[in-house]
Amino acid sequence: MELEAKKWGFQGKQELNAPTITVRGALKLLTANINKDNSSPVVPLGLSDPSNFPSFRITPAAEDAVVDAVRSGKHNCYAPTVGILPARRAIADYLNRDIPYKLCPDDVYLTVGSKQGIEIVTSVLSRPGANILLPRPGFPYYEHWCAYNNLEMRHYDLLRENGWEVDLDAVETLANANTVAMVIINPGNPCGNVFSYEHLNKVAETARKLGILIISDEAYDSIAFGSTRYVPMRVFGSTVPVLTLGSLSKRWIVPGWRLGWLVTSDPNGILQNSGVIDSIIGYLNISSDPATFIQAAIPQILENTKEEFFSKIMCLLREGADICYNRIEEMPCLTCPNKPEGSMFVMVKLNLSMLEDINDDIDFCLKLAKEESVIILPGRAVGMKNWLRITFAVESRLLRDGLERVKAFCQRHAKKQ
Amino acid sequence: MELEAKKWGFQGKQELNAPTITVRGALKLLTANINKDNSSPVVPLGLSDPSNFPSFRITPAAEDAVVDAVRSGKHNCYAPTVGILPARRAIADYLNRDIPYKLCPDDVYLTVGSKQGIEIVTSVLSRPGANILLPRPGFPYYEHWCAYNNLEMRHYDLLRENGWEVDLDAVETLANANTVAMVIINPGNPCGNVFSYEHLNKVAETARKLGILIISDEAYDSIAFGSTRYVPMRVFGSTVPVLTLGSLSKRWIVPGWRLGWLVTSDPNGILQNSGVIDSIIGYLNISSDPATFIQAAIPQILENTKEEFFSKIMCLLREGADICYNRIEEMPCLTCPNKPEGSMFVMVKLNLSMLEDINDDIDFCLKLAKEESVIILPGRAVGMKNWLRITFAVESRLLRDGLERVKAFCQRHAKKQ
Repeated sequence: MELEAKKWGFQGKQELNAPTITVRGALKLLTANINKDNSSPVVPLGLSDPSNFPSFRITPAAEDAVVDAVRSGKHNCYAPTVGILPARRAIADYLNRDIPYKLCPDDVYLTVGSKQGIEIVTSVLSRPGANILLPRPGFPYYEHWCAYNNLEMRHYDLLRENGWEVDLDAVETLANANTVAMVIINPGNPCGNVFSYEHLNKVAETARKLGILIISDEAYDSIAFGSTRYVPMRVFGSTVPVLTLGSLSKRWIVPGWRLGWLVTSDPNGILQNSGVIDSIIGYLNISSDPATFIQAAIPQILENTKEEFFSKIMCLLREGADICYNRIEEMPCLTCPNKPEGSMFVMVKLNLSMLEDINDDIDFCLKLAKEESVIILPGRAVGMKNWLRITFAVESRLLRDGLERVKAFCQRHAKKQ
Repeated sequence: MELEAKKWGFQGKQELNAPTITVRGALKLLTANINKDNSSPVVPLGLSDPSNFPSFRITPAAEDAVVDAVRSGKHNCYAPTVGILPARRAIADYLNRDIPYKLCPDDVYLTVGSKQGIEIVTSVLSRPGANILLPRPGFPYYEHWCAYNNLEMRHYDLLRENGWEVDLDAVETLANANTVAMVIINPGNPCGNVFSYEHLNKVAETARKLGILIISDEAYDSIAFGSTRYVPMRVFGSTVPVLTLGSLSKRWIVPGWRLGWLVTSDPNGILQNSGVIDSIIGYLNISSDPATFIQAAIPQILENTKEEFFSKIMCLLREGADICYNRIEEMPCLTCPNKPEGSMFVMVKLNLSMLEDINDDIDFCLKLAKEESVIILPGRAVGMKNWLRITFAVESRLLRDGLERVKAFCQRHAKKQ
């Protein structure tokens, strides 16, 4: 058939092609910038995914659980939209460790990683004129999904002089009658901080005063290796309704399994009365689920993973945080305001005045990738220009090597005195 | 802390709590209506998920592929948002069987089941004022996602007197300058029809004339066991751009694995030029992915599944379709206009005038569930009031038993002459 010029009536959705910097987009750009003639191995300090390093390999017990679920032949079927009951029950029990307020299986909704949890909460809470309070720096999927769901964002700062605590004065100033929720990320991505019980209590009191709910992103649940004890936000569920996002990804080092959960902590039934629960179920009814056999493996994964696995990972991360903090202290052009106590990241300030021929954080990261084959995320991708987000969840030898190369890079680009 | 009355500033999203009938909602309602004192087994003819019947069990080759991917320890990591290359390449090769126009790996995007594909295409094509043409009866997730994404729906009929072909005159009448696409489902869900090459050619010509793209839902790809040969819509990709949705779910009988694909067939680059490709990638950049190790298993699954597995499933479905059609012919109050030739469903008309004390399709299905423990989907859930959607993808003994009970039910409720 001869093809005449044709006017077609469709086009892509411009908002989806937006030129904003995404984490994945930035990392792709940096990776493309690596000099292929450089024989040194690439050091990936941009993303918290150590699953392919031998020291961080998943416990065989979790592998066995998935293999058993596949081999049973019983879990190739569709799952209920909220998730299968044994998995919901096992997650409730897991989260009930050491917590006075007890969750029941109906409080747990399975999601395709905690990223789908972000998609769900921003959708459920969006309505014309509504706004939500987000941390800066933060985790940019909140920004992406708020933009997609037309939920206005207002950013409060995390205070570096106070161990990256929430600026509660700013929260009170930013909130108005149309504010629906605030997001906290604890342990902190990207700052590596862990909020104290006292601080979380103040956050809860503030949210209650403002009449907003708390979305507590606990993707790094229990990944705390410093002096501050990790406390889940849902401990304060009777003060303020809490939606918790969590997943297997980080604690079990299986980000590719895409198994997360959205948990409601609301002994006073406020989420039920306000229609939030119905909307969560409504969204789940039309969206995609995590694979059924991975759901089915959950009880066995949670029961059979030994404490030694977690403590080994904590040792590795504590060591990584130490290496990272100490090496950065040796570099005058980088400042690390707080030694990380949790998660897999640290935020580092770039002192541009001490560097020659480096324009900003993006320029730093692009040149670093090209000259040293080290990938570090520019802070702009997480809301802080001229900062860097570095992960220390890497084999320690590779981490040392990578930071040595960062040091050489900084020395080479240092302003001559 | 004493709890004072508190005004909370958030609420659920009303649109998500809408009382529209969803497939999952209807089935849940029907299941709840089953009389637990009835000792006969429940016969599930509502959903096409035969994965738990021994005859329909997945081939061991596919299980092996997943187990190998898990055991390798190499696929616990995040995947690229578009999917991992070996999986994209294997799917392109799989879809290239017997087709002149060849796909390349970059034409293939992995999705969390083909349901996420619906989410993506309705999002990408939505813009203020745009409309899309959907089949009636159809697959209600299109309606749910169009409503969610504010994409106006216009329904064209499938013509039961013409073997459920597309009413192309209606398509031309419904379309206007704001029409962006039309959806076809082939093999047909819920009608069990298979479109001929000639008919698909006419559909392509019509879409080209109207300047709209075609979304071809091929979730039941190759599941054709009648006299009409199955032809994928992308054969006509040079006439009109085609977005194909497919998945492992139906052909491999693993709906719970949540592994689907969205494929672009567009040798003339129209989707690229109109920004549709960029928007698809933009959406994938912020949304959730299928589990990485299931992606990694794809090449082995596609290569090692023997033709005998597929032909066994085709035999079972052909037998099921025969049983279903023949039994329904024996029931005066039910009419099946066309013997199914594909997919796992058939649409059956309810002759209410021959029944006593049955108000409509929902009433029929509720009473049938209660009295006979047989689950059938009311046609209203797929857009056709006073019709029924029945799946024949069930063990044949159970299918015979279920239809026997439907017959007894109809006789019991028949209007006295």
